[in-house]
Amino acid sequence: MAHDLLLLAGDGIGPEVMAEVKKVVGWFNANGMAFAVEEDLVGGCAYDAHGQAVSDATMDKALKADAVLLGAVGGPKWDKVPYEVRPEAGLLRLRKDLELFANLRPAKCFDALADFSSLKRELVEGLDILIVRELTGGVYFGEPKEIRDLGNGQKRAIDTQVYDTYEIERIAAVAFDLARVRDKRVCSMEKRNVMRSGVLWNEVVTQVHKDRYSDVQLSHMLADAGGMQLVRAPKQFDVIVTDNLFGDMLSDVAAMLTGSLGMLPSASLGAPDAVTGRRRALYEPVHGSAPDIAGQGKANPIACILSFAMALRYSFDAGEAADRLERAVETVLADGVRTGDLLGPAGGAAVSTSAMGDAIVAAL
Amino acid sequence: MAHDLLLLAGDGIGPEVMAEVKKVVGWFNANGMAFAVEEDLVGGCAYDAHGQAVSDATMDKALKADAVLLGAVGGPKWDKVPYEVRPEAGLLRLRKDLELFANLRPAKCFDALADFSSLKRELVEGLDILIVRELTGGVYFGEPKEIRDLGNGQKRAIDTQVYDTYEIERIAAVAFDLARVRDKRVCSMEKRNVMRSGVLWNEVVTQVHKDRYSDVQLSHMLADAGGMQLVRAPKQFDVIVTDNLFGDMLSDVAAMLTGSLGMLPSASLGAPDAVTGRRRALYEPVHGSAPDIAGQGKANPIACILSFAMALRYSFDAGEAADRLERAVETVLADGVRTGDLLGPAGGAAVSTSAMGDAIVAAL
Ligand SMILES: CC(C)[C@H](C(=O)O)[C@@H](O)C(=O)O
Ligand SMILES: CC(C)[C@H](C(=O)O)[C@@H](O)C(=O)O
Repeated sequence: MAHDLLLLAGDGIGPEVMAEVKKVVGWFNANGMAFAVEEDLVGGCAYDAHGQAVSDATMDKALKADAVLLGAVGGPKWDKVPYEVRPEAGLLRLRKDLELFANLRPAKCFDALADFSSLKRELVEGLDILIVRELTGGVYFGEPKEIRDLGNGQKRAIDTQVYDTYEIERIAAVAFDLARVRDKRVCSMEKRNVMRSGVLWNEVVTQVHKDRYSDVQLSHMLADAGGMQLVRAPKQFDVIVTDNLFGDMLSDVAAMLTGSLGMLPSASLGAPDAVTGRRRALYEPVHGSAPDIAGQGKANPIACILSFAMALRYSFDAGEAADRLERAVETVLADGVRTGDLLGPAGGAAVSTSAMGDAIVAAL
Repeated sequence: MAHDLLLLAGDGIGPEVMAEVKKVVGWFNANGMAFAVEEDLVGGCAYDAHGQAVSDATMDKALKADAVLLGAVGGPKWDKVPYEVRPEAGLLRLRKDLELFANLRPAKCFDALADFSSLKRELVEGLDILIVRELTGGVYFGEPKEIRDLGNGQKRAIDTQVYDTYEIERIAAVAFDLARVRDKRVCSMEKRNVMRSGVLWNEVVTQVHKDRYSDVQLSHMLADAGGMQLVRAPKQFDVIVTDNLFGDMLSDVAAMLTGSLGMLPSASLGAPDAVTGRRRALYEPVHGSAPDIAGQGKANPIACILSFAMALRYSFDAGEAADRLERAVETVLADGVRTGDLLGPAGGAAVSTSAMGDAIVAAL
């Protein structure tokens, strides 16, 4: 019973970091696990190949795979391609068609890197928060979403934020479930003072909490105040649950706080199948495609490797293997192995993307 | 020819900080200027008095005034009042009916307070950025904006982000104009990779720049990356121009970075009248109503006093008076006078709201 793993390396540094994941998968295959790996295109490279940011054939493979691992998409090369086929459209279609409504974004500060944060060390040392972002609703997908020509040189652009009760219920449940195996605290963020979707969000999260999760502590914060508090005192949070757009903003801020952007993985999960219990899943680093350093062997593959560790944990029920991989990363860091982004102002000698991957495999 | 100034102290610490502004206005009246001050209600206190977050009578006064100065609105006391009359509705109606489309939010780090930032001192020392936020459009006011009952216990919440070309043109022009008297750099932020309004925003800002402001340097950044960059290296920015909701989030993050939240004023401006040149304006501190410390004489009145300084500059063509007031604040800070929020971990003796106001008047 091989595990079907689809690798979509994407653009920019995507292929480089994914090459290191392949080494790691190879190690696990040589040591008793069985991953059947397929590879395909997404993003700008898919557009270049067949005019689509993700093709129907690739979507078929993604729907069938046990897990999808994505590198990164986008870059200035595709700034002028039509809106419908821009690189990001591939990622958005994957999220939507696989129904990956729950995006888990841990923001963790690695001890060895605490000095890299722009925040004072004591504010981020030991930081470990989890942002649970709704991923298939809100302003990302609501209709109408269009630009109308009003004549006289005037246009009108419209985006629509839509949330139904069930969408908020299921993401709230994910956040509460995850809080139960962490510090049992959830902070829900919205703008109920301005947005009707914020009002409904607040109401539904409160209800789910009352009905099913009264053992978890729930608080509410306006999303703008939440951004402030993340900067002021991030350690006050355990799990944050929020909508698609606020989640996009807040998780990027939280990730940057850690000083460990090149280290942060993420998971996007669907609902468990009622019969098989299997849930669709896509894993990807939090960082982007970094076109400025692409192809130079400078990228840090750790975020992508740790994304595979999340896949081991959430898709393949292989918590021990995940632990082992995470420990290997920690060992390598403790040994002082550093890609360029991990050097900081003090400098030192940087290893290449490939050398970092080799070191992690050796530590396994 | 008296200047008509309408003071809307609002809720929480609003009345306390506004009382100190009145002392400052009194000083200017005793020294050659002529302000005719009126006072009225907005927010929760207005709701308590007459069931509206801002009454029609108050709106009339605001429309006639040369400038409006607002304290703060909101608090847990009004968490359960109907959506249409919640405290924030008063502020939103003022912004909309006065057509205050341009919100100027300086994020400035005061030298004496640089250690208060959660960021490392060298990253914020000397920080002086200006966020220009569109304030009368976007998801704050677009229709439909409602919660529909779908039956079966399901509801659907909808908010609509709408931007027309002319709205983007006029806010872009404000940003470029302000950049011209600063460091001549504007960074425009949107999410064009996900939102059609981001596509139009990017297009229109680019066109306005090309047509009328090629002497200013223009760059573009995705709003999520913008949030990251604000945390990583805020000094890279001069003027940031962005939409209503992104402006709400990003200006709060930027304000918190400075460590000087109790010090930051803001101005919301309308278009100059074609005949008189007069522009409607509302000034308010960036901080909120801080209900937890309200009524205890602990609040820092400086943000509200500096909001009056912005009024002197932008509404009353009294740049010298504004300079004088700003210098008085700096003198008082340099003398070590501190409200509680300005004490930091080292502690020390805090003065009251009223003593801070007196010290500033004395320094004038
Ligand atoms: C690439 C882009 C469409 C995407 C998003 O906005 O969701 C990215 O910023 C992210 O956070 O995964
Ligand atoms: C009070 C609230 C309606 C307001 C907003 O969201 O605009 C506030 O957060 C602000 O930034 O002025």
